[in-house]
Amino acid sequence: MSTVNPRVVDTLDLRISEAQRPSSKVMHFDEPLMLDCGQTLAPFSQAYQTYGELNADKSNAILVCHALTGDQHVANTHPVTGKPGWWSTMVGPGKPIDTNRFFVICPNILGGCMGSTGPASINPATGKPYGLSFPVITIGDMVDAQVRLIDSLGIDQLFCVIGGSMGGMQVLEWAARQKERVFAAVPIATAASHSSQNIAFHEVGRQAVMADPDWCGGRYLEMGKVPRRGLAVARMAAHITYLSEEALHRKFGRNFQNRTDRSFSFSADFQVESYLRHQGISFVDRFDANSYLYITRAMDYFDLAAEYGDVLANAFKGTKTRFCVVSFTSDWLYPTRESKRIVQALNAVAANVSFVEIESDKGHDAFLLDEPEFFATVRGFINSAAEKRGIPPARNG
Amino acid sequence: MSTVNPRVVDTLDLRISEAQRPSSKVMHFDEPLMLDCGQTLAPFSQAYQTYGELNADKSNAILVCHALTGDQHVANTHPVTGKPGWWSTMVGPGKPIDTNRFFVICPNILGGCMGSTGPASINPATGKPYGLSFPVITIGDMVDAQVRLIDSLGIDQLFCVIGGSMGGMQVLEWAARQKERVFAAVPIATAASHSSQNIAFHEVGRQAVMADPDWCGGRYLEMGKVPRRGLAVARMAAHITYLSEEALHRKFGRNFQNRTDRSFSFSADFQVESYLRHQGISFVDRFDANSYLYITRAMDYFDLAAEYGDVLANAFKGTKTRFCVVSFTSDWLYPTRESKRIVQALNAVAANVSFVEIESDKGHDAFLLDEPEFFATVRGFINSAAEKRGIPPARNG
Repeated sequence: MSTVNPRVVDTLDLRISEAQRPSSKVMHFDEPLMLDCGQTLAPFSQAYQTYGELNADKSNAILVCHALTGDQHVANTHPVTGKPGWWSTMVGPGKPIDTNRFFVICPNILGGCMGSTGPASINPATGKPYGLSFPVITIGDMVDAQVRLIDSLGIDQLFCVIGGSMGGMQVLEWAARQKERVFAAVPIATAASHSSQNIAFHEVGRQAVMADPDWCGGRYLEMGKVPRRGLAVARMAAHITYLSEEALHRKFGRNFQNRTDRSFSFSADFQVESYLRHQGISFVDRFDANSYLYITRAMDYFDLAAEYGDVLANAFKGTKTRFCVVSFTSDWLYPTRESKRIVQALNAVAANVSFVEIESDKGHDAFLLDEPEFFATVRGFINSAAEKRGIPPARNG
Repeated sequence: MSTVNPRVVDTLDLRISEAQRPSSKVMHFDEPLMLDCGQTLAPFSQAYQTYGELNADKSNAILVCHALTGDQHVANTHPVTGKPGWWSTMVGPGKPIDTNRFFVICPNILGGCMGSTGPASINPATGKPYGLSFPVITIGDMVDAQVRLIDSLGIDQLFCVIGGSMGGMQVLEWAARQKERVFAAVPIATAASHSSQNIAFHEVGRQAVMADPDWCGGRYLEMGKVPRRGLAVARMAAHITYLSEEALHRKFGRNFQNRTDRSFSFSADFQVESYLRHQGISFVDRFDANSYLYITRAMDYFDLAAEYGDVLANAFKGTKTRFCVVSFTSDWLYPTRESKRIVQALNAVAANVSFVEIESDKGHDAFLLDEPEFFATVRGFINSAAEKRGIPPARNG
């Protein structure tokens, strides 16, 4: 555990107005972070949220890793959108991740745009936003930055690291890079590498952003512009992949939006069009376009086996971590076979692993939605692991 | 059969240089075409290609209906791209659709951009390209325009109407609207209505085009511009849906393009990125952006049951057409269940129908690719139907 000199202050996200300023904490680090690309980053910040209380022996910390467009606001009202936290069904008093029992930490990832250092941050060398001069980061880099935060909080071992989608990729990197520091790990709806199809969808999104003249070669913040249209198109395309065909059919079918027949125009006649347009437009208000480029790139670059001689099992050699791997039947972005690949690698090194495929027709997004079987799985695994770890039951439990 | 006053001339596609001018025929119609939107269109043109010879009793005509980005160049070198015709494996001497035996006609669809009237055509009322003043058309309108062409060729009954994807939608409309004039019908990799997910993907494409400032509110031709970036992004997104995840994995996996490791930049590191970018860029050279908007809209609007009191079987009531419905196992754009819905409707009216699901891992595009089982199916069905129709064997057969 490296000793650092962190300074805890309130977030001051450049893109968010005074009134909307989120209440998250931010830890600043001056010691350079060595990145996978070979460059170093300094200084850098990690914005984060916490819920519950760290116990005396610091054994009850759960690290929640967020997905591509998530952030640290897991279980509190979001400061920009005013909506409930993205996992408020999972994390809270009495919830599967019970904040009466556990101390929950969720950092905004490196490269993000909610207070952690990313392409929208000011480059101290120039006094201007990094833009494309920000180094291309990896999932491993995100985890290395989080390690600094956990060090600063004085936590030797995390009781659990949990996350879905790109959050699951971080869970896998934590388990691989920090074997002694992860008691239990729950990678959900994720993969040990990004598939060709997923790279393809991300590339479409990036090209949509970059095709927008208001992107200005990545320097839109300096120019006082925002590539709204490009980022909205990127979000629309991505959003389709988060839902199953079945969910779209059930939710929208071919229903018209506020009309009974076709308009014979290019208006949003269908509910699904109206929904997608809304998804695109509202995303732009809360997300930075360059962050979107950097984070999708990090996901595309993710290939855990490649870091360990092309043998995935090597990533977990010697692990004592207890794993619970979760997939959803209708998730076509990270289908069950990707989770099985992780389970096979863990089995190959005789790791302690359970695997659950949850029956759901909601697609990839199921991990964010109300799925009782999923909640029961997480609750059961965490409580059982907590017992093994000797963490006392919930205060009000 | 209405009597019209067609004039056959060579195509003069405004967007194609003198040297590249395609050799297709064009039929011009002055009599207005009544459209599903309630408007009429006049005059209008149907560009088309033919292969083989019409026999004396005009009983050997096969109408090939092309898909979204296809055109009339089924089996000859494409005048713009210089590539073989899009179905040259299927249509030709000795091929499953044997031009030694059959007279093959393929019209460029209404709304297209290869010589048939579409949004890039000159509006005679203004002397300028139609742009968004072109009426929003339907699959039914495309078929009605084709009926005029078939009338002009003096053909009472088509021996067969065949097509994949949107071509299959036209096949279904032909079978429904022109029951007496279709002896056999082969709808391939298609659906009787466009699903919510498919509408969603199309909407992303349209928004990508419309987000491009060079689209100029649809008036880019007048402005001497082309919304290249928007249309390329639309094509990239669509192209992913034409391939299966398996095909992408086999074809590209996570292979790098001309390098051995990540560039840590936003270059096209991966082969799949490079491939998609190429697909996007090359598409722009041969396709009109507004045509893309209109044709995707026509597909979204397609809902055959809705035209017949919401009962799909009613569309086929009284049919004597012989149907062969074909789907592909890995097609997730028009999955087998969509074909089964068509088959069930045909069964409900005791139609003569055979159904074949072809084992293939190539996704939706399989209908354009080298699939021996598929070729054998089409060859077998067509030859057997030709025998029933009393069409003599191939001249050199």
